[in-house]
Amino acid sequence: MRDKEFFMHHALELARLTIGQTRPNPSVGAVVVKDGRVVGTGTHMTAGEPHAEVLALQQAGDKARGAEIYVTLEPCAHYGSTPPCAKAIIDHGLEKVYVATLDPNPKVAGGGVEWIRREGIDVEVGILEEEAKAINHKFFHFMKTRKPYVTLKTAVSLDGKMTANSGDSKWITSEASRHDVHLNRHQHDAILVGRETVLRDDPLLTTRLPHGGINPTRIVLDTHLSIPLHAKLLQDDSSKTIVVCGKNANTTKENDINAISHAEVWRLESEHTDLEALLNRMADEKLMSLYVEGGSTIHSAFIQEQWFSEIHLYMAPKLIGGAMSKGFYNQFGFDEVKDSIQIEFDQVQHIGDDLKIIAKPRVEES
Amino acid sequence: MRDKEFFMHHALELARLTIGQTRPNPSVGAVVVKDGRVVGTGTHMTAGEPHAEVLALQQAGDKARGAEIYVTLEPCAHYGSTPPCAKAIIDHGLEKVYVATLDPNPKVAGGGVEWIRREGIDVEVGILEEEAKAINHKFFHFMKTRKPYVTLKTAVSLDGKMTANSGDSKWITSEASRHDVHLNRHQHDAILVGRETVLRDDPLLTTRLPHGGINPTRIVLDTHLSIPLHAKLLQDDSSKTIVVCGKNANTTKENDINAISHAEVWRLESEHTDLEALLNRMADEKLMSLYVEGGSTIHSAFIQEQWFSEIHLYMAPKLIGGAMSKGFYNQFGFDEVKDSIQIEFDQVQHIGDDLKIIAKPRVEES
Repeated sequence: MRDKEFFMHHALELARLTIGQTRPNPSVGAVVVKDGRVVGTGTHMTAGEPHAEVLALQQAGDKARGAEIYVTLEPCAHYGSTPPCAKAIIDHGLEKVYVATLDPNPKVAGGGVEWIRREGIDVEVGILEEEAKAINHKFFHFMKTRKPYVTLKTAVSLDGKMTANSGDSKWITSEASRHDVHLNRHQHDAILVGRETVLRDDPLLTTRLPHGGINPTRIVLDTHLSIPLHAKLLQDDSSKTIVVCGKNANTTKENDINAISHAEVWRLESEHTDLEALLNRMADEKLMSLYVEGGSTIHSAFIQEQWFSEIHLYMAPKLIGGAMSKGFYNQFGFDEVKDSIQIEFDQVQHIGDDLKIIAKPRVEES
Repeated sequence: MRDKEFFMHHALELARLTIGQTRPNPSVGAVVVKDGRVVGTGTHMTAGEPHAEVLALQQAGDKARGAEIYVTLEPCAHYGSTPPCAKAIIDHGLEKVYVATLDPNPKVAGGGVEWIRREGIDVEVGILEEEAKAINHKFFHFMKTRKPYVTLKTAVSLDGKMTANSGDSKWITSEASRHDVHLNRHQHDAILVGRETVLRDDPLLTTRLPHGGINPTRIVLDTHLSIPLHAKLLQDDSSKTIVVCGKNANTTKENDINAISHAEVWRLESEHTDLEALLNRMADEKLMSLYVEGGSTIHSAFIQEQWFSEIHLYMAPKLIGGAMSKGFYNQFGFDEVKDSIQIEFDQVQHIGDDLKIIAKPRVEES
């Protein structure tokens, strides 16, 4: 049926097209319809550039007068790097505004809709709302909690091993799963590894996708600043690298790293890495989502303190075995099963020959 | 469409109804149709009692003359505990026989069909053949390989742990998964555990299903015959218990166990448990399928020697963690990922809040 859900569905598709490229803004799509004809479409493409509504209204031009607009997120009401979208809607003389969901920021939620209504324009909110929230779920999480959305990513065999007995981990999963990992790098603001991964694999941690992608900010947890200056992510300047250390780390090394134009040291006030302090610092810097490609040490820390919103477990059709081989959560843990951390399975996908299991913290029913 | 597949589908449903209760025979269903009316149905219910075709023909009586019969497995041609079904079909004057699949035993395959054809009755083979093979896949495997069909069953958390740090494993999975485990006990001829499981959990290893179920023969791997005589599976006589030991095990203990009416010791010729010798002995005793509820020691042995046809991994939405906690394949293993055992994911099911992942050895394409 070509009803309001139909047009909102296409506005959502426009929003989906730009997931990952609007940082720190959310992805938003808009469609303008006049007398049953689409007269304008837009999607927000880059922070600092026009919002979806404005682009769609520019296309519509004079046809916007008396038209209806479908927007996947509440039009903004504040003067930021661009003028408020609510004002553009009012100025263009629209007759009706359909909004999928309100602004997640509790301080501004409803402000845009209110302003538009005050001008006598009819606004309907809540069309395909859950889909709209899902598109920007990391952004919504950040606005609600003021902490980055943390995704833990791991690749294991059926028997739960990240590494073989020697520590080798190349390659547990298939090319198809690795493509999916790069897509996730594109969709997160920052990526995090531990010093062990840097020392062992010397990774670039860039996004390598067939048609290109956006590199996340690289974060290395390195309490004593022990990674070498010739590490690839300190040499390669295709994205920023943040090295996080404890309060006692060597200051000469800190200066050396800070001297690299794309690199920066974050010295925490604690001796060891305080994850909450790190997440708060990220929030201050508007890094709203974090993709953790940890080894067992890093993942164990995030899990034990329950700092995660999702776990992406890529499972390969292999049996690795061995007492020396490692699972992804091989430290801390619990003495009894009943005390373990409760999660829930959100999705299971087949990716090539692998499985991708997405798990989330269990939401207790109230 | 009410075509030959329609009637064969219902014959297959009759066969499915009795999976697990026809040991050592396969499950077989039959439907007799005369002038578009169903005039007889049957399913083989218990070894030694009439086969599906015979039961369906008994119901049909005189109406079988000139009728057609749908059978899910080739009618037998030999005098066993019951007269050959091929003869019954011929004697009843049927006009047409539809067979889903031939007898898997290479020595007799086609014999029943040939006999019937010799008598001038038209036989068509291959209707819904893959479904028919799937119903009796354990039986087909046994007939082809002369080794039991081995299913390894394990229950783990998302992070691949069978136990918490203390060794505790109660309860990783949900009630719904445990019901599925009991269904699998019902569908396997034998169930196997190691001595450690007997010493720690003292299990009964019986089938506990809401409407009852058949108990598998219990097998304990116990190289030195160290399980106590008061172990539940030596006390409880609701099914046979076989204790498998190495050549040097204590003979007094052997005699003690053999003195228990439902128990028996199998002394192997090797010092430690030789899995191939065990599987051959099982085959001699017509135990065609084995459900392995191992701990890590048992599973590691079966996996390393690649003696398995399926792995049933029940995954609970939990994170257990810890360096002392165990995966199900925690011994032997491989130094490098590239040398690991290749498998393939056959099915993923949601069972309650858990996942059930079924994996099989990878079949190399020729």
